[in-house]
Amino acid sequence: MFDGFLAFLIVFFVNMKIEFVPIGFVTDVKEIPRHWSISDAEGKIIIDEKYIEGLKDIRQGQKIIVIFHFHKSPEFNSGYLIQKPPHKEMEMGVFSTCSPVRPNAIGFSIVEVTGIQGNIISVRGIDMIDSTPVLDIKPVVEKG
Amino acid sequence: MFDGFLAFLIVFFVNMKIEFVPIGFVTDVKEIPRHWSISDAEGKIIIDEKYIEGLKDIRQGQKIIVIFHFHKSPEFNSGYLIQKPPHKEMEMGVFSTCSPVRPNAIGFSIVEVTGIQGNIISVRGIDMIDSTPVLDIKPVVEKG
Repeated sequence: MFDGFLAFLIVFFVNMKIEFVPIGFVTDVKEIPRHWSISDAEGKIIIDEKYIEGLKDIRQGQKIIVIFHFHKSPEFNSGYLIQKPPHKEMEMGVFSTCSPVRPNAIGFSIVEVTGIQGNIISVRGIDMIDSTPVLDIKPVVEKG
Repeated sequence: MFDGFLAFLIVFFVNMKIEFVPIGFVTDVKEIPRHWSISDAEGKIIIDEKYIEGLKDIRQGQKIIVIFHFHKSPEFNSGYLIQKPPHKEMEMGVFSTCSPVRPNAIGFSIVEVTGIQGNIISVRGIDMIDSTPVLDIKPVVEKG
């Protein structure tokens, strides 16, 4: 019974496409990005003006989560299921790495807000490149 | 010059759609979910079998990031730019909330792996519901 339902869901999802439209993009990145956890690179996130009200509580000094699209990644195939992260000695399953080459090319970073002016958020600790499409911004919430 | 480039990029992105296909889905959630930061709910994430090799380094006891689709959210409109989070007194900009109603209905949770068997990851601290499409799994990385 469960197996049948499972099979149904898998077939359903394999054919299911989920579409997003960027809320903005990254610009003005001054360094070659490294992973956000070790990056001090600065840059700007320009948000589509129609969402400007939604930014009203973002403050300088705060950390935010940025969800973005690795838009320069090659298409994923099974050869990328196991990858050697740049600073590790061993090969790992893709879901245990931060590789930009993954089944869905979704990136996640925590960056520091160094300023906000209208629809432009200046940030530090960015590991994105110019014109990276930004999909979402969220607050950093600690496990309570 | 910069403004012209900006205008170009905005027009470009407004018309740009980014498509993802779920890597799996959530099932067997036993409680009504609360936000992951306060949830103890257990559930399972079933990953498409073609990605099973990519799960090889996920271990019991570990925390993982789950990126998912809020597939039951109503369509976003400007009325949702400001929202009152359930446990706060004041209204906030959507990008400072974890609301499932956001321009791109992307969810983010950190959950604890309580077991893994083949393509089925048992997790605790879930705030998703049955059949939530999962888009990505990532390791939890601390700022170094």
